[in-house]
Amino acid sequence: MTSDSAAEQAVLEYHRAWTSGDIDAAMTHVADGIVCHAPGGDLTGKDTYRAFLAGFAPNLTGLTDVASFADGERVALFYYPHTATTSTAPAAEYFTVRDGRIVASVLVFDRLSFAPPTQ
Amino acid sequence: MTSDSAAEQAVLEYHRAWTSGDIDAAMTHVADGIVCHAPGGDLTGKDTYRAFLAGFAPNLTGLTDVASFADGERVALFYYPHTATTSTAPAAEYFTVRDGRIVASVLVFDRLSFAPPTQ
Repeated sequence: MTSDSAAEQAVLEYHRAWTSGDIDAAMTHVADGIVCHAPGGDLTGKDTYRAFLAGFAPNLTGLTDVASFADGERVALFYYPHTATTSTAPAAEYFTVRDGRIVASVLVFDRLSFAPPTQ
Repeated sequence: MTSDSAAEQAVLEYHRAWTSGDIDAAMTHVADGIVCHAPGGDLTGKDTYRAFLAGFAPNLTGLTDVASFADGERVALFYYPHTATTSTAPAAEYFTVRDGRIVASVLVFDRLSFAPPTQ
């Protein structure tokens, strides 16, 4: 079992880690069998998810946190990732935490907003 | 003042109304001065927001609600809007409610997922 505060704590640690570029630390909060529902399709399993996160994280130039919610093992975050392209396109994540690790997430962002700038 | 449950109630009524095509009923829960941070830019004022909502709502063919959170005047929803193009692209909204009406929202969705199918 994961207490309410432990679930939120795990997610916030995960969030702070990857947004500061520490993918290894972030992944300690992710379960092997994670399923992430992302724009364009599902990311299944820790290796696939890590590759996705490690691919995006270097593009991050800053972060504006907007809101967090927690209810039992469910945690939600809203934030603005800053990239070379945008700092005003919101992202949202809805996490399910079991035994201290993220087992599922629904990741919402606008791919168009985060696409590389056109030349 | 808006109690916790009143804020969540207003948002859920708003959500049920527009997703069933009743824009008039939905807009009774929206403040004149609403500011919505959406992919591609801000929507400011009730008329602009109504036009946006009325433009998207006819495309909706179904809905899968995923999660809701409430904390004081703040409410969050995660759901899958179904359209001719997709029923697996998540959307998220983070609402601020004052005096029973939605005064601000952060709307997150992937424009690519909801684009009309290519011919």
